[in-house]
Amino acid sequence: MSDTTLPNQYEVHPHTKVVRGPKRATYDRELVHGIIDDALICHVGTVVNGRPAMIPTAHWRVGERIYIHGASKNRILAAIAEGEEACLCITHLDGLVMARSAFHHSANYRSVLIYGKGEVVEGEEGKMEHSRLFIEKLEPGRWDKIRQPNKQELKGTMFLGFDLDQVSAKVRAGDPVDDDEDYDWPVWAGVLPSTLQWGAPVDDARIKEGFEGQGYLRD
Amino acid sequence: MSDTTLPNQYEVHPHTKVVRGPKRATYDRELVHGIIDDALICHVGTVVNGRPAMIPTAHWRVGERIYIHGASKNRILAAIAEGEEACLCITHLDGLVMARSAFHHSANYRSVLIYGKGEVVEGEEGKMEHSRLFIEKLEPGRWDKIRQPNKQELKGTMFLGFDLDQVSAKVRAGDPVDDDEDYDWPVWAGVLPSTLQWGAPVDDARIKEGFEGQGYLRD
Repeated sequence: MSDTTLPNQYEVHPHTKVVRGPKRATYDRELVHGIIDDALICHVGTVVNGRPAMIPTAHWRVGERIYIHGASKNRILAAIAEGEEACLCITHLDGLVMARSAFHHSANYRSVLIYGKGEVVEGEEGKMEHSRLFIEKLEPGRWDKIRQPNKQELKGTMFLGFDLDQVSAKVRAGDPVDDDEDYDWPVWAGVLPSTLQWGAPVDDARIKEGFEGQGYLRD
Repeated sequence: MSDTTLPNQYEVHPHTKVVRGPKRATYDRELVHGIIDDALICHVGTVVNGRPAMIPTAHWRVGERIYIHGASKNRILAAIAEGEEACLCITHLDGLVMARSAFHHSANYRSVLIYGKGEVVEGEEGKMEHSRLFIEKLEPGRWDKIRQPNKQELKGTMFLGFDLDQVSAKVRAGDPVDDDEDYDWPVWAGVLPSTLQWGAPVDDARIKEGFEGQGYLRD
């Protein structure tokens, strides 16, 4: 997916300049791609009738675009399709940072924030291709094994793409950072690490005979 | 925290009525509390200068209010403090739902969506109490062991509370639901379960002598 003609960094726009905690900010293209691709869900915000609205939803990336999908009638997707700006946020919680002072408690995380207008994927062919890309993200090779979407299903589904242009990321990792005078405070300090962990696949109660135990163990 | 004088269900407001996937909707107070309390971070959306904006941040709950905090100068918190409506979303990804048809692939999840205006916690006493509640959520009993906030730290931190009133939750659990005619499709179907997993605590490189290995293993 990497395009060697692109700069290594996303351009810093007035709207994507990280003001709070600028030392944690990064615009590194490869790092942003990694944060997006490691995640299965994002939160999508927009403005509906002047009010903030949000949904969690699955996403996938193709080069310099991120895609989401949902019911065509979903009011948030419909608002974006009609031209409302959106804001997509992807967050990995990597741990809790337990400092010596209350103030310096924090989280280790990797997050990406994307602003932009969405573009509707038009036509059956494009929708079919994005159905495939979504399924292949869930399990590489699965598309050829499943029952692919029919016309009616494609018609009822909206796919929206967003350019990766107004993009920023924030990353915090490692130890707490306390004030110098607090390092002797008599308390444990460190990190409580967290990861999204995948368990053993669970067969559907109506699994087709002969397919038991064939689930795909992620990672 | 439970108040037996409250109804078991949140009121369904026009704005919180779940239209898409209404079978997954719930307004059960206890269930909503559980989804909120099980999570360490939420996504907060609002409108800043007419544009959608979002941050991931830590939260905690006290009865029928949810609280967040951050730098007083944070532009999203400042906008909410000045009266912009906010939208808070908490999402647990519990698994990927692998169906026989592309269309019925889904996720198992528990999510809560809260709309409302924020109320700023004023005064040192209130800010101190919410610092305590936040730290105690991270590790019960930790507040009495750490260096508590000083005046300057409290001054630079904004705490915002949101009533749990315009609240809805969505929950999906269990097996894929395919169309009847697809159940014989020759492919594995089921759930790939996911959980946020806590690893062994990692001591700070500058851990005080005698406190090594004393980290708190969550869950």
